[in-house]
Amino acid sequence: MALADTRFSNRRRKLASTLAGQRIDGVVITHLTHVRYLTGFSGSNGGLLLRKDLSALMATDGRYTTQIADEVPDIEAVLGRDVGPHLLSQLDGEMRVGYEADYVSVSQLKRMEEAAPEGVTLVPVSGVIEDIRLIKDHIELQKLEELAALANQALTELIEAGEVAAGRTERQVAADLEYRMRMLGSERVSFDTIVASGENSAKPHHGADDRELRNGDLVTIDFGAHLRGFNSDCTRTFVIGEVSDFAQEIYDIVLRAQEAGVKASVPGASLVDVDAACRDIITEAGYGEYFVHSTGHGIGLDVHEGPSAAKTGKGELAEGMTLTIEPGIYVPGRGGVRIEDSLIITSGSPKIITAYPKDLQVL
Amino acid sequence: MALADTRFSNRRRKLASTLAGQRIDGVVITHLTHVRYLTGFSGSNGGLLLRKDLSALMATDGRYTTQIADEVPDIEAVLGRDVGPHLLSQLDGEMRVGYEADYVSVSQLKRMEEAAPEGVTLVPVSGVIEDIRLIKDHIELQKLEELAALANQALTELIEAGEVAAGRTERQVAADLEYRMRMLGSERVSFDTIVASGENSAKPHHGADDRELRNGDLVTIDFGAHLRGFNSDCTRTFVIGEVSDFAQEIYDIVLRAQEAGVKASVPGASLVDVDAACRDIITEAGYGEYFVHSTGHGIGLDVHEGPSAAKTGKGELAEGMTLTIEPGIYVPGRGGVRIEDSLIITSGSPKIITAYPKDLQVL
Repeated sequence: MALADTRFSNRRRKLASTLAGQRIDGVVITHLTHVRYLTGFSGSNGGLLLRKDLSALMATDGRYTTQIADEVPDIEAVLGRDVGPHLLSQLDGEMRVGYEADYVSVSQLKRMEEAAPEGVTLVPVSGVIEDIRLIKDHIELQKLEELAALANQALTELIEAGEVAAGRTERQVAADLEYRMRMLGSERVSFDTIVASGENSAKPHHGADDRELRNGDLVTIDFGAHLRGFNSDCTRTFVIGEVSDFAQEIYDIVLRAQEAGVKASVPGASLVDVDAACRDIITEAGYGEYFVHSTGHGIGLDVHEGPSAAKTGKGELAEGMTLTIEPGIYVPGRGGVRIEDSLIITSGSPKIITAYPKDLQVL
Repeated sequence: MALADTRFSNRRRKLASTLAGQRIDGVVITHLTHVRYLTGFSGSNGGLLLRKDLSALMATDGRYTTQIADEVPDIEAVLGRDVGPHLLSQLDGEMRVGYEADYVSVSQLKRMEEAAPEGVTLVPVSGVIEDIRLIKDHIELQKLEELAALANQALTELIEAGEVAAGRTERQVAADLEYRMRMLGSERVSFDTIVASGENSAKPHHGADDRELRNGDLVTIDFGAHLRGFNSDCTRTFVIGEVSDFAQEIYDIVLRAQEAGVKASVPGASLVDVDAACRDIITEAGYGEYFVHSTGHGIGLDVHEGPSAAKTGKGELAEGMTLTIEPGIYVPGRGGVRIEDSLIITSGSPKIITAYPKDLQVL
């Protein structure tokens, strides 16, 4: 039998102690990302009931009987398809039990209320696990670093193979990059790959379509791998053939802004200030109105998670957080540039885990 | 300006007439698949308010201003990031307004209640749009057919290129198949590709890992493409090198069961009977306990949608529905076989849209 990983019980302890402060006797976790975070269970249907004394019970369906015993050797599991109601039905006595109000649907709450024995009061809980997830442990950071290295290797191979070139379509470039990540071990993309060329590079949320890359194009590639629950996220912008003055100008501005954002990402820095460190450079260069999104986000079990480096960002950076720094300039009809790194916040300068060079590369 | 597609207004009319029967004056649609189904809008944030008189209002955020005007020329859109509450805040007067209880989280409902003006009563609605989606129109059917043909082409190329062969890993095979679908125009996989070889073929929910294909292996490949909202789904099982008596036996049984299931899929057939048509053959052959899942599901905007061909299936098949028929036998430690077609239910025999041959192919 596998040994239980103390990382998971440590996380459950943190959760239980937060809940105790809210006068809650237990909590039913049904959001799969959180079930995985608190137990290591990676199946597609599962739930966790955690009491404030740290005793726990899990539920899953018959497909995962063996898997849950392997992955979570220290928690008993009961079988049932609708795991939230099933876990609640196992309780007795007077209890205040939390549920994940941001993820539980109204219908699911109704089924949970019907299944809970008399005496059990259901209480909405929000944001508690997200707060615990903000600070990553060294194994999480190591996995994120390895995955970013895998994605970086794929981009390196793509560029060295000459697969980003005039005459190829955005979709072909995306397919080649995804294929290389897959062959290097990625389970899937962490989000739909963006290959935005020419006028498409001015659309921050462009996907990858049948447009052919042409001489003079800016080409923004925003991509990520997903492996065992974790995600990577990196953006680089290239130029095909000839660099126009416009391309060189906005590239230089975005790169300066990006480097300023990285430099500002130290423990104690407010997230509003990190955003401003990027944004001010773009604004001063006269392109403020073309930087139409926020500066960055945490990355981990979700591609987008806390913290948020934005004008409306809350709180401060701390050691062990992750953060992307991804300023961009998008001038409709002309083109755009985005440069994005994923960082680990350390006691000193942040560690950039997306190693691909950032000087303007002409292909 | 693009012309509004009457398919969308027809769907909204069906929805409004159902709701009128439930004494509901309007409905707020926030589940993105349903927003797309009812309007054609394909962005990642959007909502629809539909009144019983068919007047409508949409909401999205600033990223999609141009896109929503292009895709939905006949409905006015207001800008706001939290679209459900934003749409409700536009109302006035006494109204009973439905919301999608199966998709709206408890937190989201709370924000909607806070945003709704006095006089507006929120009413849970469930399953109504899913019921309308059961019967596909000819454009939906054509798109599903084209997408199944694309996926079929990718599998054909994969096999012809000799990429399913001893010495290759499951992951490599999956990567090659996904790459071929992508190059043929697929935006992404419709679900994580399954390449389950040897003992892994006995696990219905295996993914694709580093196991190398070996002589004598059964190899089950379950895969799908996704394009413009639609999904495909097909499974074939192959043998590498030499066919054991066991492999031949269970393959023949599953194929007979699968063909019986297809034959049973006619308008008026109860979904329990379609399931039984497959299951009885496997049970009579002595492998009933190894067919551990249901027989099939509808396919469309979701990979799994209604109807459900299962022991607990409800209702009957009707012309214009889709259905997969995918029986399997999984013998732990020895291996498994699954064969899956996607069908369109017609007035006569069903149309099989997953054209790849089903006779046992040795690679």
